[in-house]
Amino acid sequence: MAVTSRERVRRAAVKLFATKGFHGTGIRDLAQAAKLSSASLYHYMGTKEDLLAGIMRDSLGRLLADATAAVSDVADPCERMRRLVTLHVTTHARQPNETRVVDNHIDVLSGRARQEVIALRDAYEKLWSDTIEAGLHTGVFDTAQPAVTRIAVLEMCNAVARWYSPRGALSLPELATHHVELALRVLGVREQVRCGLANS
Amino acid sequence: MAVTSRERVRRAAVKLFATKGFHGTGIRDLAQAAKLSSASLYHYMGTKEDLLAGIMRDSLGRLLADATAAVSDVADPCERMRRLVTLHVTTHARQPNETRVVDNHIDVLSGRARQEVIALRDAYEKLWSDTIEAGLHTGVFDTAQPAVTRIAVLEMCNAVARWYSPRGALSLPELATHHVELALRVLGVREQVRCGLANS
Repeated sequence: MAVTSRERVRRAAVKLFATKGFHGTGIRDLAQAAKLSSASLYHYMGTKEDLLAGIMRDSLGRLLADATAAVSDVADPCERMRRLVTLHVTTHARQPNETRVVDNHIDVLSGRARQEVIALRDAYEKLWSDTIEAGLHTGVFDTAQPAVTRIAVLEMCNAVARWYSPRGALSLPELATHHVELALRVLGVREQVRCGLANS
Repeated sequence: MAVTSRERVRRAAVKLFATKGFHGTGIRDLAQAAKLSSASLYHYMGTKEDLLAGIMRDSLGRLLADATAAVSDVADPCERMRRLVTLHVTTHARQPNETRVVDNHIDVLSGRARQEVIALRDAYEKLWSDTIEAGLHTGVFDTAQPAVTRIAVLEMCNAVARWYSPRGALSLPELATHHVELALRVLGVREQVRCGLANS
């Protein structure tokens, strides 16, 4: 019962934070959407900031764990990038509200919660920057601004959370494949060595 | 005097909408920030939605006019793209709050204001899609998904509003040049024909 209420609050919060923003969402909105009193809500979740911090920590923690597992046994930078982009694009397309909350609300957090979330985000981005560094080292990637290029690739992939619809023309695998192709282009990979991918 | 108050309200609204979100910003916050009473605020600007619509209309209208002027006498798709990316990146880096408001609040608007803003955005995006179509037609661009690729390029350029600092390592012209290079890569332009740009 406690678990169910907690999960119901989480889901309501993700939806409300994503559509009305953190500041635009009141405790009463949350309680109403989760069918709880404000007192019960506080009992299950603590403050509104605690609730946001929990959502961000879980979501980023899951993404980091999945990404770490996806590249753990892979040395080839192209293949690592292919796996990172596929996971990132698929996650963002499947969970648009959750990623919108996670991607846009770090400045709302403070103190230890903020430090924890930033540490998770930094660890996740380090997987990307290590992969880019590895590709530059072997000469398969080519960019004079690795950090700016990493942001460009990530933002390009983040965008799918804002527009992708499962009812649209592209399937999730097609969407992921297309973004892998774009990411490798951004990273300066020549067509002949694009990990055996067909050219888009 | 009226013009000054109007401008003061505009500036306060851009800052508050960008940091607290539209729903998180109260009429009182706006009045206080602009040093007006709520009644005067309403007199100058109408409702909160009118104020947001005005900001979005002006900002997108200016961007559309500047972009139209920038490419009006240019046929070469690479050079058109270079100018569009340069203007977009420079505008986003210079006015991070304004572009954050414009890029994230279309769903808040309704009725005629919404139609007007969507028409401006569509006209602006049409400059980009026409340029991409032209490049595909002449064979200098290469992508199987022109619409998805257009979004990827725009989002990559939008990102600078979230991270660029004039006190950082890159100057505005360097930032723009780097994004032109990335955009042409995304569009599949081969290095030899990259509008005479040096490789990054």
